[in-house]
This record gives sequence, C-alpha cells and structure tokens, in this order.
Amino acid sequence: MKIAILPGDGIGPEIMAQAVKVLNVLGEQFEMESADVGGAGYAAHGHPLPPATLALAKSADAVLFGAVGDFKYDTLERSLRPEQAILGLRRELALFANLRPAILYPELAGASTLKPEVVSGLDILIIRELTGDIYFGKPRGVRECPDGPFKGEREGFDTMRYAETEIRRIAHVAFQAAQKRSKRVTSVDKANVLETFQFWRDIVTDVHKEYPDIELDHMYVDNAAMQLVRAPKKFDVMVTGNMFGDILSDCAAMLTGSIGMLPSASLDAANKGLYEPSHGSAPDIAGKGIANPLATILSAAMMLRFSLNKVEQADRIENAVKKVLAQGLRTADIFEAGTTRVGTEEMGNAVVKAL
Amino acid sequence: MKIAILPGDGIGPEIMAQAVKVLNVLGEQFEMESADVGGAGYAAHGHPLPPATLALAKSADAVLFGAVGDFKYDTLERSLRPEQAILGLRRELALFANLRPAILYPELAGASTLKPEVVSGLDILIIRELTGDIYFGKPRGVRECPDGPFKGEREGFDTMRYAETEIRRIAHVAFQAAQKRSKRVTSVDKANVLETFQFWRDIVTDVHKEYPDIELDHMYVDNAAMQLVRAPKKFDVMVTGNMFGDILSDCAAMLTGSIGMLPSASLDAANKGLYEPSHGSAPDIAGKGIANPLATILSAAMMLRFSLNKVEQADRIENAVKKVLAQGLRTADIFEAGTTRVGTEEMGNAVVKAL
Ligand SMILES: CC(C)[C@H](C(=O)O)[C@@H](O)C(=O)O
Ligand SMILES: CC(C)[C@H](C(=O)O)[C@@H](O)C(=O)O
Repeated sequence: MKIAILPGDGIGPEIMAQAVKVLNVLGEQFEMESADVGGAGYAAHGHPLPPATLALAKSADAVLFGAVGDFKYDTLERSLRPEQAILGLRRELALFANLRPAILYPELAGASTLKPEVVSGLDILIIRELTGDIYFGKPRGVRECPDGPFKGEREGFDTMRYAETEIRRIAHVAFQAAQKRSKRVTSVDKANVLETFQFWRDIVTDVHKEYPDIELDHMYVDNAAMQLVRAPKKFDVMVTGNMFGDILSDCAAMLTGSIGMLPSASLDAANKGLYEPSHGSAPDIAGKGIANPLATILSAAMMLRFSLNKVEQADRIENAVKKVLAQGLRTADIFEAGTTRVGTEEMGNAVVKAL
Repeated sequence: MKIAILPGDGIGPEIMAQAVKVLNVLGEQFEMESADVGGAGYAAHGHPLPPATLALAKSADAVLFGAVGDFKYDTLERSLRPEQAILGLRRELALFANLRPAILYPELAGASTLKPEVVSGLDILIIRELTGDIYFGKPRGVRECPDGPFKGEREGFDTMRYAETEIRRIAHVAFQAAQKRSKRVTSVDKANVLETFQFWRDIVTDVHKEYPDIELDHMYVDNAAMQLVRAPKKFDVMVTGNMFGDILSDCAAMLTGSIGMLPSASLDAANKGLYEPSHGSAPDIAGKGIANPLATILSAAMMLRFSLNKVEQADRIENAVKKVLAQGLRTADIFEAGTTRVGTEEMGNAVVKAL
C-alpha cells in the first residue's frame, strides 16, 4: 500500500515526521513517498501543486497531508498561493466528503474557552461537502455590473451551486456515518434565503427516506452557529455544504480548545482519501520543535481506518494517544499546570512507546 | 416624528408593548402607528409585507420591529413566509448597514456558556452589509445543470455579488463607527477562495486610505469564527458581507449568553433605520408574559440615537436598563439564583420607573 506524504509548510514537516515515525512502527508494509506541496511546492517547482506531487497523490492509496501556508507566500498572486494546493487536490482527486470530528478529550476539558459542563464529553462529527458550492462554481470573477442600481461599475461575483448528485452522495455519507453513531443527523442550510439550499433541503429529505432508522432535522446556518456556542453537545452528526462547513467546522473545532488534537479526512467515492490535521501551518512556531503532532498522528489513524482498511492499527494509534494524554504529556498548545510539557519529537516518541 | 411600529409574531407584540410604553414616558412627541407584518401580515392581508405596512414604513422616520415567524407559517410557500417581510423591508428601504452590538453586561456574565474571563467586558460591534451578497444576487433558482460532470441533471444555484459602491459605503460606516470606538476594524472575508471577497478586500483596503487614524486588519471568515470562540475580546468593530455577517453576528450574540438583551439597527444612507431585537419570535413562549423586552427597549434607544437624533433620550433608556439589571431584576432567559425573576410587563414597568 502506497501512501503519499505531503508535509507542506510551517510546522508541516515537523508534525509529519512524527506521524511517519508512528506509521513505521506498526509493523505493516507501507510504501511511503514524499513530495513538495504548498509554499514548498512553489519554492522548489514554481507551483503549489507541482505535477509530480499531483501524480503521486493520484497514484497513492491515500495521502497524508501536513499543512500549507507561510507569510512569505502571502504576496503571490492567488493562483500560486499555498492554499491552491489543497483546493487543487480536493478537485483533482474528487474528495467530496470531508469528515471533521470535534472531540474534547476529557483530560483537555480545561483548554476550552467554554465552561466544562457545556463541552465536556463533546463528540460531534461534521461532514462538509468539499468539491461543490461556491468554492468551484462558475462563472466567477470581477466584471462590469450588468444591471440594477450599480449597472456599469465593477462588481465581484461568484456562483453557488449544487447538483442533485452532489447533495445525494454527501447525504448518504452523513446518514451512514450516523448509523454507526447515535443515529441523528442535523442538516445545516439556509433554505429560507438561498435557492441552492432549499434544493439541498429537499434532496436531503428525499435521501432520508432510505434511512428510516435515522432521525433528521434541518437547521439554518445562523442558528447552527448559535447552537454550537449555546449547547454543542446536542449535536451528533452535522452535514452541510462547502462554505457553511468551512465556517462551522472551524467554530466547532475551537469549542474544544485543542485544535492541535483534531484530525480530518477528505474522501472520494471509493474511500480513497486525503488526511490532514484541522489546524494550520502555524509559521510563527515553525522549526521550534514545539508544535503538537497529535492531530497529524490521529489523521494517520483515520487514514488506516477509512482508506487502508487497517481498523485495528487505527485503534492502536488512537489508544496510544489517549495513553500519552493520561500520562500527562502535553505540548505547549494544550499545556496546563500539573502536566508535563513536551516538544513535538518527545510527543511523537511517547506515542511510539505507548504503541 | 413618526415611528412605524411593527410588532409581528410570537413574542413580538408583548415585547413591543413594553418598548412603546418606554417611548411614551420620555416626554417627546412621537407619532406612533402600528401595522401587521410577518405571519400577522399574512393572516390579516394575505402577505407577510402588506402594501399598507410597506407604505407606513416608507413614510415613517424610523421603524421599530418586533419579530416574525411562527410554526403555523412554516408550510407556506417561501414567498409568503414571515421572513420575507424582513428581507422585503431591507430591500425596499435600502437598509444596507446592519449594526449588531454584542455586549456582555457585567451582571450577566454568568449567562454565557464561555468562561467569565473570556467574555466579561465583551463589547463588539458587528457591521453586516444587508442588501447585497448572495441574499439578493441574480440569477438564482433551480435549473438544468449547464455543464460539467452533472450536466443535464437539476441543480440549485445562487449568485453572490458585490458592486464597488456597496462595499465602499459599508466600509465607510465601519471606519466611522471605529472612530467613535477603539479605532480598529477587522474586515472579514474569504478572499482566498471567492472573487467577490477578494474584490471586497481590495475595496476595503482602498477606502481605508481615507482613515489613517484607523487600524484595519483582514481575516478569513473561518478564522473569524474560531477567534470569536477563542478570544472574542480581541475584536472591536467587525465588518463583513451579508451572508458571513448573518452567521458571525449570531455567533457573537450567543457568546454573551443573553441574546434577549441585544438590539440591532439597520440603516439606509440617510440614517433612516429599522430597529429590532437580535432574537427571534420565540413562538414557544409567546403569550406567556415571560419574554425579555430589553432587546426591544434597547432597540428603541438605538432608534433615538441613530435615526431620531435624540441622543440624550437614548442614553436615558440605556441607563435605565443598566439600573434594572443592577437592581437584580431578570426575565426567565437571564435568571440566575440570587436575582429576582420578573415577567415581560414587570420588566417594562421597571424600566419606566428607572427613567
Ligand atoms: C485554505 C482554504 C482554501 C481552506 C478552505 O476554505 O476550504 C481551509 O480553510 C480549509 O477549511 O481547509
Ligand atoms: C430571517 C432571515 C432571512 C434573516 C437573515 O438571514 O438575514 C435573519 O437570520 C437575520 O439575521 O435577520
């Protein structure tokens, strides 16, 4: 089995090194091949998603991705900026289903800005559609305003859109995920304003007929943002579009206060996937050896579970992470008085030892 | 001076009655005229925004709005549903600038789901553009997908758009509001993905040149949602588009835990405005006499300040509200042990007395 290793920028290489170390001690035969992506791709090959990197990702059974972005690439024109790599990989690999768990480990309840009783035991799975919506819809651009009160002046514009198939397949992912959890799905939309999301609501309601064991409710996105702050534990599986999912999944992740712990998976129709930590490239702490590698290590566990069909190995890694937390080991981002502060490498070594 | 009073549905009439009572004791000569809106407009005249209601709103110097929506109107076709009234008023009255303060009154710090140290003293002003963006952009609808992998099947679609003038004028509102506060503006966009919001960023940056005294930073909407949860007090004035503003302003309101306290203003270019509480119509508690009227009373204060140029009277009302809070009076939504629980009417009377 071949894994594409794309460390990227900022803390990407450091955290990736720990995940690779963990994969290497599982006793499995993985072929791992690395390539440059993001700013590193641009620096070495003139493009954030160099052709060789894309080819590697396509040929691999799964992609493990670090993080991209650095201040020094902020002034590049948009098509060359690091985040184009991640958008390009999603589109080219047809990774339409983004699974973003927001889990609060009991040991880390103190890290949240929310009161412990509001978040302790939090375990939400946000399923974000990842290849449709206003992210890729056309036409888009800056043009002369064609009509209305601002006719003739410049306007920026984009197209939001969802085809029926796109909604159906992400709804299936959500209902099937809920069957393995508490059998409840909240579909988040803005059906009261947007045609796209009235259509979304209609199709999700239709797909739901195939899942009589699942309870479905619909919620407007503004209300969902409020309820995430007010009573996040009421949610179990949330499913939504690309744009709303971008906002809500980050909001939900931050509720835990420990975004350095949260993995994510982006899957295609055959469960091939790209796995990455939910946090960014944190260029301000890059190279200092203090970044938290656990989200990347847990992303590797998700990869084993969803794409490589090594459920037992995934469990092993997840249990090892729980063990090091129970041992009181903490990187700087989740450090609290009474625990032991460790660096990136020590944390990786501790997980290896716990395995 | 003429004020249009639009109580609406659910708790709307009860809370509006208290605001009207407060306006009546100020000793000013206001002509107040009421009209049906929302579900009440549909029930009485077959449309959520009856022509007479719109005419009244247009002829008035300001509009005081309660809340709209009730379960019984949920099955109506979209164009007849209560929320169309609010969208219609925004469009017809050209109310492009929505000011939504998120303030945590010190006495109510316990009501927040966030830790007191994270939110105590919170005072954010969110400025949401209210007549552009994907809310009103055309074309929109359900059509046959014109191209791409889903060609020929049905798709829902909408158009996001902002003309230069629309961005300029809301940016001016934000910079001028910041001049009266701590001189910092955060413009929230998604310039890394959306053409509309790259254009937004460019124009806001340009308008900023006229305000050398103001510090401007740009933030992506997903990050803004995270930072609102992580460290909300770092924000002062936030300015953003209609869709992102819908989500972020509700999220910020909920951080305070006391959305029953939060007013809002929606202004046109001449500072004529519509004023409404940030909360909804709460049909589940309608008619019980327990709803919190303070957000509506504070909306009346904003109306005096922004549209009717009665700054002193606005101050009087705001101080009276602070006084009743200091006296320990609380409606059910903000009740805590050790305070005195009062109903809607008692709360209104207490404000009148404090005046
Ligand atoms: C970097 C950016 C394009 C991306 C997105 O908006 O999808 C990121 O925010 C994410 O959520 O992975
Ligand atoms: C009712 C709805 C159309 C409205 C909106 O989305 O603007 C509401 O959520 C608001 O924020 O006032």
